[in-house]
Amino acid sequence: MEKIGIGLLGYGTVGSGVGKLLKANAEDISLATGRPVELRRVLELPGFSSPDLDPALVTHDFEDIVGDPEIDVVIELIGGTGAARDFQLRALRAGKHVVTANKQLLGQHGAELLETAEQNGVHLRFEASSVGAVPIIKVLRESLVAAEVKTIFGIVNGTTNYMLSAMTETGADYADVLAEAQRLGYAETDPTDDVTGKDAAAKMAIMSSIAFHSRVNLADVAHEGITKVTAVDIAHGRRLGLVCKLLGVARLVDGAMNVRVYPAFIPVSHPLAGVSGAYNAVFLESAAFDKIMLYGPGAGSVPTASAVIGDVISVVNTAKGSFTHNCLCYKDRPFYPSDDVVSRFFLRIRVADRPGVLARVAAVFGEEGVNIQSMVQDGGGDAADLVFLLHPAREARFFAALERLLALDEVQGEPGVIRVEE
Amino acid sequence: MEKIGIGLLGYGTVGSGVGKLLKANAEDISLATGRPVELRRVLELPGFSSPDLDPALVTHDFEDIVGDPEIDVVIELIGGTGAARDFQLRALRAGKHVVTANKQLLGQHGAELLETAEQNGVHLRFEASSVGAVPIIKVLRESLVAAEVKTIFGIVNGTTNYMLSAMTETGADYADVLAEAQRLGYAETDPTDDVTGKDAAAKMAIMSSIAFHSRVNLADVAHEGITKVTAVDIAHGRRLGLVCKLLGVARLVDGAMNVRVYPAFIPVSHPLAGVSGAYNAVFLESAAFDKIMLYGPGAGSVPTASAVIGDVISVVNTAKGSFTHNCLCYKDRPFYPSDDVVSRFFLRIRVADRPGVLARVAAVFGEEGVNIQSMVQDGGGDAADLVFLLHPAREARFFAALERLLALDEVQGEPGVIRVEE
Repeated sequence: MEKIGIGLLGYGTVGSGVGKLLKANAEDISLATGRPVELRRVLELPGFSSPDLDPALVTHDFEDIVGDPEIDVVIELIGGTGAARDFQLRALRAGKHVVTANKQLLGQHGAELLETAEQNGVHLRFEASSVGAVPIIKVLRESLVAAEVKTIFGIVNGTTNYMLSAMTETGADYADVLAEAQRLGYAETDPTDDVTGKDAAAKMAIMSSIAFHSRVNLADVAHEGITKVTAVDIAHGRRLGLVCKLLGVARLVDGAMNVRVYPAFIPVSHPLAGVSGAYNAVFLESAAFDKIMLYGPGAGSVPTASAVIGDVISVVNTAKGSFTHNCLCYKDRPFYPSDDVVSRFFLRIRVADRPGVLARVAAVFGEEGVNIQSMVQDGGGDAADLVFLLHPAREARFFAALERLLALDEVQGEPGVIRVEE
Repeated sequence: MEKIGIGLLGYGTVGSGVGKLLKANAEDISLATGRPVELRRVLELPGFSSPDLDPALVTHDFEDIVGDPEIDVVIELIGGTGAARDFQLRALRAGKHVVTANKQLLGQHGAELLETAEQNGVHLRFEASSVGAVPIIKVLRESLVAAEVKTIFGIVNGTTNYMLSAMTETGADYADVLAEAQRLGYAETDPTDDVTGKDAAAKMAIMSSIAFHSRVNLADVAHEGITKVTAVDIAHGRRLGLVCKLLGVARLVDGAMNVRVYPAFIPVSHPLAGVSGAYNAVFLESAAFDKIMLYGPGAGSVPTASAVIGDVISVVNTAKGSFTHNCLCYKDRPFYPSDDVVSRFFLRIRVADRPGVLARVAAVFGEEGVNIQSMVQDGGGDAADLVFLLHPAREARFFAALERLLALDEVQGEPGVIRVEE
């Protein structure tokens, strides 16, 4: 049987996991695909070196990989949107399948890459880009392709989930929890992509493109991170039976797409409330199957590598030249404006404790057509926290009310603004 | 583009769902596969008739389907192990792909059917046979094929899950809940396969064959159902923080397989404890990805039909003649005896309230090497319930102790015996 030749770009956390799994599971892969697998070359970037890697495999020149006719599949794990993009395009044009975990590249240049794969009759697979070891891309693109998924809703970033879990359990504030997460290796030295929601947004762009059959780019995904979530608001939510999670939410509204990432309160009884630490979980909703949930580790060397290997097996088992359906974006849906989305909000504002302040606040809500479900006043003396749970309202109305509230003389400091999902 | 011709066997609950989805999602299927899909023939069994079905499609002769060269995929939804087996074998031999939801047939004759598919270079797909709309077969056979799954653990029967949820919530006994479930359509008129665990056992046979790469037949799966679960034991469990679920449990122990179905107590905090009603959920464990959980509706017309359509798309997208890997049972693992499995037990026995009875009971446990974690005495007067939570022990030891206990003069009536999982 002809071997499957593999070229690996990058030998960091995930790359070394791939190397390890390829070796440990060589027999299973060979039995599953009918062909033995061979890691032929590993591209190491300048400044990196991997002492545990056979020096005969190492190259610093991409030509050694793209020019090797025995290499069928190129696994890109160097990340970023520069060299990685160039390497992926060249590999696809050379007729090689590409497997990647690069969510930012997919989120920003997915259309170009998928079209290039399509034109060259090869596969581009990216299971590891979305929810680590959880095979949500395969499920969406193969099992549920005709199921009209209407909603994707879940926890798709392990770092922020770990941090919010820690804030909830310990009552510590954002900065302290971040420092601790960095110390333990759950957050990177530069945590920007995670804490701003950009990482989650790229994943939501990829998943919603496939689920809705219409291109969603990273730039189309409005994202708020967890940087403004305070221990005070988490504690208030807890008293209301709510838990704070960073959610990715993609919805079809009247055939139009709204894809966002934001911190949200969910009831403690919600299945996502129990997803803690570095785990991810995603609900898919459809008229065809009501709801399906997939849960698993969101990152990590071996889980991510396991998703990469699954993709390698998948491309090898799907014959070259057969219908490749790399890009399932055969529809061209509009986007649904976030202003028009109907949402529930939790709002905490700090007010000077003067007579009539609550009446003035309530009047603003009334004039903007935002109804109050419950209000709790916390503290007293010079200033008090007013904590509102609001009824669902168009977001434009809520934000208009918020702007007017913040302009009131009595309102002080930063408000706490968190959506409430059910 | 060449059409995909479909022949459908059976037009009952799932069959009519398939007809509906094929029509409603014709465009999506065509765009996903590159080929339009055409339902060419529906085999109705004697005694059935479907007024909403185009009479031109209906046939009562399987020859009209197997002999039609335009039919590429035969969907078998008549169930049972008689005609269904014959039809599947003939369709496969005629070079047609087969998609089915027939778990009993797969569980009993899977090897024969998969070998026949293999020999004829066609696919046999059975996603709908296992956990309804949840694509666990695809995930196991494609995404996780090289991930060395060690454990499958979950709720795989919706009827019994609904019944146990109802018993827990209402305190009602088995017979009353069964009658109510039948009235509401959650349990069939003949509920035997569900309540005895046979339905769950067939699903566990199918899933563990794929996960462990070694054939597991229905006959290899010891199954206890929920017929002996009492409201009294559920209430005792509840006081101990435990919830009763019918679990399918497949484990690799030293490379050998132990696959079973039994009612078990799990902690209320366990993610499976919150899975109620007709939902199913399955945990997969592996060193490669720690654990993954898939959750969704376990049955129902449209969810099951959605899984069937996913399989149709999958076979069409996998080129004929490419490596078909229908049977992934390329290993030949032994079975691990249940007697040697180490389990924890909940045990309730009714004893005459005489002096020294607890000492005699405790002596039996001690002599058999089964240690008591906690004991609660409930009731008094003539007789009392002794409720034990035991430490993990070899099952052979526990059952030896149980036999001796039941032989004691003081022990009366039926004991409550339920495993405890964590």
